[in-house]
Amino acid sequence: MDERVREHAEVLVDWSARIETGDDVVVSVAEDAHDLAVAVAEKLGERGANVVTLYDSAEVSRAYLKAHDGEFGDDPAHELALLEHADAYLRLGGGRNTTASADVPGETQRAFARAREGTREARMDTDWVSTVHPTRSLAQQAGMSYEEYQQFVYDAVLRDWESLADEMAQMKDVLDAGSEVRLLKEDTDLTMSIENRTAVNSAASVAYDSHNLPSGEVFTAPYATEGEVFFDVPMTIQSNRVTDVHLTFEDGEVVDFSAGQNEAVLGDILDTDEGARRLGELGIGMNRGIDRFTDSILFDEKMGDTVHLAVGRAYDSCLPEGESGNQSAVHVDMITDMSEDSKMLVDGELVQRNGTFRWEDGFEG
Amino acid sequence: MDERVREHAEVLVDWSARIETGDDVVVSVAEDAHDLAVAVAEKLGERGANVVTLYDSAEVSRAYLKAHDGEFGDDPAHELALLEHADAYLRLGGGRNTTASADVPGETQRAFARAREGTREARMDTDWVSTVHPTRSLAQQAGMSYEEYQQFVYDAVLRDWESLADEMAQMKDVLDAGSEVRLLKEDTDLTMSIENRTAVNSAASVAYDSHNLPSGEVFTAPYATEGEVFFDVPMTIQSNRVTDVHLTFEDGEVVDFSAGQNEAVLGDILDTDEGARRLGELGIGMNRGIDRFTDSILFDEKMGDTVHLAVGRAYDSCLPEGESGNQSAVHVDMITDMSEDSKMLVDGELVQRNGTFRWEDGFEG
Repeated sequence: MDERVREHAEVLVDWSARIETGDDVVVSVAEDAHDLAVAVAEKLGERGANVVTLYDSAEVSRAYLKAHDGEFGDDPAHELALLEHADAYLRLGGGRNTTASADVPGETQRAFARAREGTREARMDTDWVSTVHPTRSLAQQAGMSYEEYQQFVYDAVLRDWESLADEMAQMKDVLDAGSEVRLLKEDTDLTMSIENRTAVNSAASVAYDSHNLPSGEVFTAPYATEGEVFFDVPMTIQSNRVTDVHLTFEDGEVVDFSAGQNEAVLGDILDTDEGARRLGELGIGMNRGIDRFTDSILFDEKMGDTVHLAVGRAYDSCLPEGESGNQSAVHVDMITDMSEDSKMLVDGELVQRNGTFRWEDGFEG
Repeated sequence: MDERVREHAEVLVDWSARIETGDDVVVSVAEDAHDLAVAVAEKLGERGANVVTLYDSAEVSRAYLKAHDGEFGDDPAHELALLEHADAYLRLGGGRNTTASADVPGETQRAFARAREGTREARMDTDWVSTVHPTRSLAQQAGMSYEEYQQFVYDAVLRDWESLADEMAQMKDVLDAGSEVRLLKEDTDLTMSIENRTAVNSAASVAYDSHNLPSGEVFTAPYATEGEVFFDVPMTIQSNRVTDVHLTFEDGEVVDFSAGQNEAVLGDILDTDEGARRLGELGIGMNRGIDRFTDSILFDEKMGDTVHLAVGRAYDSCLPEGESGNQSAVHVDMITDMSEDSKMLVDGELVQRNGTFRWEDGFEG
């Protein structure tokens, strides 16, 4: 086995999920994530954790959803019981075809998501971490060769996370102290309130309320959004490529939208439920180990010099104790490039210009 | 997809497991059983069942077990909760290497089996069915080409089960009315009590207390075993080939044993616990659609003209209501060929001679 796979498993189990002896762990394995599953099992055995391994196949899900009449009942008792008794949930992505579900009607996918809110909540109540094993399918989506893509993934994952966490703490301090964020660039002048919200220093560990590996972003839960925003980075929503998204907000809600490709897919997302038209997340990418867009949200949104916004569900960790943020069955991230002709202001003060933060060399105030 | 895979899924879901709308189903998928998993998901979607899909990888288990210190705690709460809330459990076998666990110490495997008795019981309390998807690894173990092996599997699985169930009912009637079974052949003169036990007409459906697809055997839970028995069919125990097993019983327990190959593996099995030295099963193979040995117990034990005995755990379905039979963490089947120079007697009366039952043409009393 490639030694990098073992190192990946070690970061996941020890740094990210902080697994201890006796923990009840669920490991979800995508179709082609077998090698990482083997390495993770080895690490979990060493730690003396207990493991249930799930098979997360897009082709299996597609077959099920297409055959179903769409009347999905409540959350199934067995799935709910598994998740409610789990301490941690490790999702190992990496399928064989990123468009495997392209012919499942969006309506069916949304109905199924709504019928599984309880299991999703139970999963998110665990120490969950999501990562990906580099597969040929993901390399293809990224437009890269397989070996090049493997190196890309391990460059992003096998990092000095402690040191990156220290860097990101500066951005968190600015957001925690601030009340309003404003983004300015081409076709973009957007204002959001972040008063009374706590930013998460997402350092790829549950110890930082961070649940992605790799990570490297600081995010919060904005509200009262006003203005317009343009997302120049393409994205894949439910197996469909969506490009050049433009959203207009009034009173915190999307009142107008357009997209270059697959505008209807975007419209369906916004129609999922009431919360799908409000923002659930503002995230600031700070992982400069990720040096290019690869059409994978796990990596793209962490890239340095980018900002992303998500419509839909907010993470409770950004809210005051006991309060809930925006509720929705969906959480769809969209990314905008901040490297050129752009500004981010907090309470009217410039924090980032053309991708450079004010505490970095080369910052022009 | 090969249409036979869809037919296999239909037999499994409808005839074998009798899945209905709203059932909470666990599907366990071996490494190379993906295509069958897709077909089963489609069928479960049509029926409106709820599905949790497990990944059953021998390589993942091996990595976990080899890394673990062997101090396995009690049954994990999350796994137990999943199984206790499941209505049905469908095991789709078919890995990539039948000897994938060959280097896991037998002691570790047995300790793990003992520590998971609760989850095994919970699984067996569901409407569970075990089947296999034909894989190249299983074809290799059978000494067959891949296409030939696929046809072998579908010949055994895609049968008129209702008609086979009628045939087998005759054997069940003989055993239910009888008190003692005697087997006679080369190196074999074995007597077992079956008084007060109920035979199972194993017609590959939970409606018949039958949990294997394919099936085609009638089995019961013998006790008070006396004498000697020779198993001329080779078997694979925990990834090791074991041949020419000879057992001697006194007062229901194995007091002497030998094997041509891997005698130590057999010895380890018999030392697992107290129940591992007593018989848990007497089975009579009656599926003449299975026409050769393929070194897979799921098929071999169902073959016409064979009898198998298992040391270890007995199935409750053979016992009077409320009583438990032989208890053990193991259940290991061993097969003897009854096609030549052999007799099976029940209460001293000849029931089968050289493979032919007394209700069949050509029977010589």
